[in-house]
Amino acid sequence: MNVDGKQIINGVSATTGTEFFYAVERVKGNRLDTRFFNASKADIDMAVTVAQQAFEVTRRKSGLEKALFLEAIASELEKAGPQIVEMACLETALPTARIEGELLRTVNQARLFAKLVRDGNWVEAKIDTGDPDRKPAPRPDIRSMQRPVGPIAVFGASNFPLAFSAAGGDTVSAIAAGCPVIFKAHPGHPATSEIVTRAILAAAYATGMPAAYFSLLQGDKAEVGIALTNSVGIKAIAFTGSNRVGRLIFNAAAARPEPIPVFAEMGSSNPVFLLPQAMAERYEAIAAAYTNALTLGVGQFCTNPGMLIHESTGAQERFYENLINNINAAQGGVMLTDAIAHAYAKGVAGRHANEALELLAQGELPQDEQLQVPALFKTNLNTFLEQPQLEEELFGPSAIVVAARSKAEMINFAEGLSGHLTATVHGTEDELILYKPLLEILETKVGRLIINGYPTGVEVVEPMVHGGPYPATSDARTTSVGTGAIYRFTRPVCYQGMPQALLPDELKDGNPLGIWRSINGQFENTSISK
Amino acid sequence: MNVDGKQIINGVSATTGTEFFYAVERVKGNRLDTRFFNASKADIDMAVTVAQQAFEVTRRKSGLEKALFLEAIASELEKAGPQIVEMACLETALPTARIEGELLRTVNQARLFAKLVRDGNWVEAKIDTGDPDRKPAPRPDIRSMQRPVGPIAVFGASNFPLAFSAAGGDTVSAIAAGCPVIFKAHPGHPATSEIVTRAILAAAYATGMPAAYFSLLQGDKAEVGIALTNSVGIKAIAFTGSNRVGRLIFNAAAARPEPIPVFAEMGSSNPVFLLPQAMAERYEAIAAAYTNALTLGVGQFCTNPGMLIHESTGAQERFYENLINNINAAQGGVMLTDAIAHAYAKGVAGRHANEALELLAQGELPQDEQLQVPALFKTNLNTFLEQPQLEEELFGPSAIVVAARSKAEMINFAEGLSGHLTATVHGTEDELILYKPLLEILETKVGRLIINGYPTGVEVVEPMVHGGPYPATSDARTTSVGTGAIYRFTRPVCYQGMPQALLPDELKDGNPLGIWRSINGQFENTSISK
Repeated sequence: MNVDGKQIINGVSATTGTEFFYAVERVKGNRLDTRFFNASKADIDMAVTVAQQAFEVTRRKSGLEKALFLEAIASELEKAGPQIVEMACLETALPTARIEGELLRTVNQARLFAKLVRDGNWVEAKIDTGDPDRKPAPRPDIRSMQRPVGPIAVFGASNFPLAFSAAGGDTVSAIAAGCPVIFKAHPGHPATSEIVTRAILAAAYATGMPAAYFSLLQGDKAEVGIALTNSVGIKAIAFTGSNRVGRLIFNAAAARPEPIPVFAEMGSSNPVFLLPQAMAERYEAIAAAYTNALTLGVGQFCTNPGMLIHESTGAQERFYENLINNINAAQGGVMLTDAIAHAYAKGVAGRHANEALELLAQGELPQDEQLQVPALFKTNLNTFLEQPQLEEELFGPSAIVVAARSKAEMINFAEGLSGHLTATVHGTEDELILYKPLLEILETKVGRLIINGYPTGVEVVEPMVHGGPYPATSDARTTSVGTGAIYRFTRPVCYQGMPQALLPDELKDGNPLGIWRSINGQFENTSISK
Repeated sequence: MNVDGKQIINGVSATTGTEFFYAVERVKGNRLDTRFFNASKADIDMAVTVAQQAFEVTRRKSGLEKALFLEAIASELEKAGPQIVEMACLETALPTARIEGELLRTVNQARLFAKLVRDGNWVEAKIDTGDPDRKPAPRPDIRSMQRPVGPIAVFGASNFPLAFSAAGGDTVSAIAAGCPVIFKAHPGHPATSEIVTRAILAAAYATGMPAAYFSLLQGDKAEVGIALTNSVGIKAIAFTGSNRVGRLIFNAAAARPEPIPVFAEMGSSNPVFLLPQAMAERYEAIAAAYTNALTLGVGQFCTNPGMLIHESTGAQERFYENLINNINAAQGGVMLTDAIAHAYAKGVAGRHANEALELLAQGELPQDEQLQVPALFKTNLNTFLEQPQLEEELFGPSAIVVAARSKAEMINFAEGLSGHLTATVHGTEDELILYKPLLEILETKVGRLIINGYPTGVEVVEPMVHGGPYPATSDARTTSVGTGAIYRFTRPVCYQGMPQALLPDELKDGNPLGIWRSINGQFENTSISK
C-alpha cells in the first residue's frame, strides 16, 4: 500500500520533522512498517503559507467549480474504497460493515455540499437597491453575501476515521466555502488519512484545483496542533474530540494576538428520559434498543447515550431485568486506541469505586486486556446533583441510570443539566404533552431533541444540528453536520455602490446564477429589472 | 427630570452599590445633580438572576408578541423624544440635529426588528420529512430553527448615546431574538440611559412583557463590566468601544469555565483609496466630502475614514491644496468625554512628534482646552509598513495620508492591512475595472467595501454588514447593524421525531405562521400536505 508517512503539502509528500510514530494494526497490536513523522514547525509554516497562496485562487472559484471538485472527491473515495476500508479497519479495529457505512456517509457528505454550492442559494445574497430620492441624502445601493474566511485547520477525530477525518464533514464544508484546509490527522489512523488525502489530491488534480486546497500534517504530539493553532495564517479551526484537548485548542486560539474561532465538538453524555407510560408499554423494546445504542461500536460515539433517567413506576423491575440481561450479554470490543481504552478502563474503575453508584450489569469480562466491555451503573437524583462529574462524558459503552422518584425530580434533573449534543425522550403521545415542561427545558440544554428514537446515527440532512451548548461544543451557534456547517468558515461581506460589472455574480441585477435572494426584503429567484 | 441614578432591575430603581459618579453637562463641564451608583456585585447578581427567570417567559414569546413590544419601544422613544434629545445633547455635547437624527435611526431600528420577527422568516426553519422506506432503517423526520440563547450583556458605546446604547441595535436585536438584556450604560451618558430605560420599561408594561426583559446597570469602573462578563447566567456579550476594553472583555469571556461569545465592535481606521482618474476629475468634490466625513461629529465614528491613500499623479497638488484648505478651515468641537479628548490630544501629539509624519493641516487651535480640532498628516508607504501602529484607530478627526508612488505600491499597502470595518475606493467606472485586484484584496480585509462614497452613515438595511476581520471586531462572522445582528443571540435547535402538537408553530406541517421554510431542500411558504 502506497503510504509513506510524511506530510503532504502542496501535493508533495515530504517532511522536515524527524520524530516519528507508528500506525498500529489495532486488533493484533502489531506496528505497521511505515513511520509517520511529526510535522515540524517548518512543515506547518510551509503548509500555512501555501494555503494562504491557494486561498487567492480558491476564494474566486465558482459554486460550479467547487461542486465539481467535491463530486470528484466523492468519486475518488469510491474508487479507493476497498483500500480505504481495509486500512481504516486495520488501524481502528472498527468492523468492516461499520467502515463501509461510514465511507458511504462520507461520500454522501461530499455530494451534499457539492449540491449546496451548485445550487448556490447558501450564500445568503441580500440586496437593497437603495433610494435615490431619499432626503437629505440618497440611500445607496447595498448588497451582501457570504464569503470564505481563509485557511482552516481541521483536526481529525479518532472515532470516525472517515466521516470526521481527512475527507469528513469539516473538510468538505470548508472546501465548499472556498477555504483551503490544513488537516491534522489523528494519530490513531495516520495511514487511512494519507490514503484519503491522495484521493482528495487526485480529485483536485482532475478538476484543476490548487494542490494546496488540502494539505495533510501528521503528529502524535499536542505541540503539532498547538503550533498549527498559533499560525497567523489560520483563520478558523474545526475540531472533534475530547473536552480536554478541545479546550486546550480553544484557549490557545483565544489568546492569539488575532483570536480566531474554534468550532470544537467535544462530546457529551446525551441523557435519555424514559416516561412512565412508554416504559410500561415498551420496556422490552426500549431496553433492547438502548443497549444497542449504548454498546454499538464499543460506545465510541459523541452521541452515545451515557445517561438514562426514569421515574419509579410499576414497570421498572421488568425494564431493569431486560436491560441487565442485555448488558450482561453484550460483547466487548477493542477500542480505537490504547489511550482511549485506558481512559475508559480508568473511568469504569472509578465508577466501581464510587460508593454512591451501584453496579447493575457488566458485559462478560474478557481474557484479552485490549477488550473493553459495557458497564451499567445506577444512582439517585441527589447523588447526581452532589457529584456533577457524573454528568461528564465517559467515552465508551458505560452508562449511569438515574432513578427519579417523581416527575418533579425528573424535571429537577433536567434543569440541572449542562450543555449536551442531544437529549432523548421516550413517551406516548399523550404523556409527551403532559411532559411539555420537560421538553421545553431540554430544548435549552441541547442541539438536538429526539423523541422516541436514539441519538446515535446522526443523519446528514439540511436541518441536522450536531452541536449544542458548552461543554458539548465551544460555539453553540454552529453545527458540524448538515449544510449549516459551511457558515463556520464564511463571513458576510457588504458591497456599497459597487458597479454591476464588479459585483459577484450572486449579487448582479441579472441574477445569472438564478439563485434565491432577498431583494428589498422579499425572497425572489428572479432578476432585478430597473 | 426624573433621573435617580440607581440600577433598574426587574423594573425597580434601587442600588446596593455605594460608590458613585456624576453625569456631566459636557460643554460647560458642570456636574449634574444626580449621583450615579456603580452597580455592586449583588446588584449584578440580582440583574442576572431575574434575567434568567425572565428568559423562561421571553423565549416562549411569539414573533407577534415581540413585534408589539419593539413597536411599543419605538413609540415610547418618540414620546420621550424631547426629553431624551435634551439630555443626550447635554451629556455628550453632540449637536441637537445629530441627536434628533440618531433618535430617528434608533426608532427605525426597533421597527426594523419588529418587522423581522412579525414576518417570522428569520428563524431559518428547515424541515426534512424523513423517509419511512429507507433501508436498513427509516430516516426520521428532522426539523430545525433558530432559538434564543439566554440573557445577554450589552455594553453601551460612548459615541452613539441612542443608536448603540440602551435602546440601540444590540438591545433591539437581542429582544427580537427573545433574549433578556442586561444593559451596562456608558458613564458618558448615564442619565440618557436611564431615561431611555424608562421608555423601554413603559413599553414592556404596555405589552405585558416581564420587566426583567431589560435591566439597567450603571458604572464608571471596569470592574462592573468584568463582573457582569463573569456572571454564569450571561450567555453572550455585545460591545461597541475601544480595542483595549473590547479585548479585555473578550479575554475574560474566553477564560470563563463556560466560555461565551463576545461580539465586540472595536472600530478601525477605514482606509480610503483614491484612484488617479477620480482624483483628476473630482479632486475638489472629494477633498470637500472627505473632510466632511472625517470631521463630522468631531470624528467620533467607528467608521471615521482615518487613512487616505492615493497614487502620485498630476492632480495631487490641487487635491492637497483643497484638502489642506478644508482641514485648516474645519472647526473643532467638544469631544464626548474627558478621557476621549485626552486620548485624542495624546494621539495627535504623538503624530506631531513622529518624524516620519509630516503635518499637512490642522484646524484652528481653540482657546478652550476642551475643544479638539482636526489634524491631517502625511507619510509614504515604507513608513507605514515600518510603523504598523499607524494603522490603529485614533478616535477623532485625525487622518494620515499615504502617498503611493505607483499602483503596485497601492496594492502592497492594501495587502499589508489588518482588519477594518470598511474600505472605500474612489475611481471612475473604467479605472475600477483596471483596479479589480485592489478591490479583491480589500474584500478580504473588511466587512463593507464602498465605491465612490464615504463610510460614515451606516445605513440600517437588511444587507448591511457593520463588522469585519479582527481587530475591527472579535467575530467577523457577525454584524451589529442590519437584520443579521439577531443571529448573534440565537442558535439552531433540532427536533427529531417530534409530534406535530409539540413542535414550535414555525415547524408545524400546517405552517400556521405562513413563513418561508426550506422543506426537503426547497424554499416554500406553504403548508406540508401528507
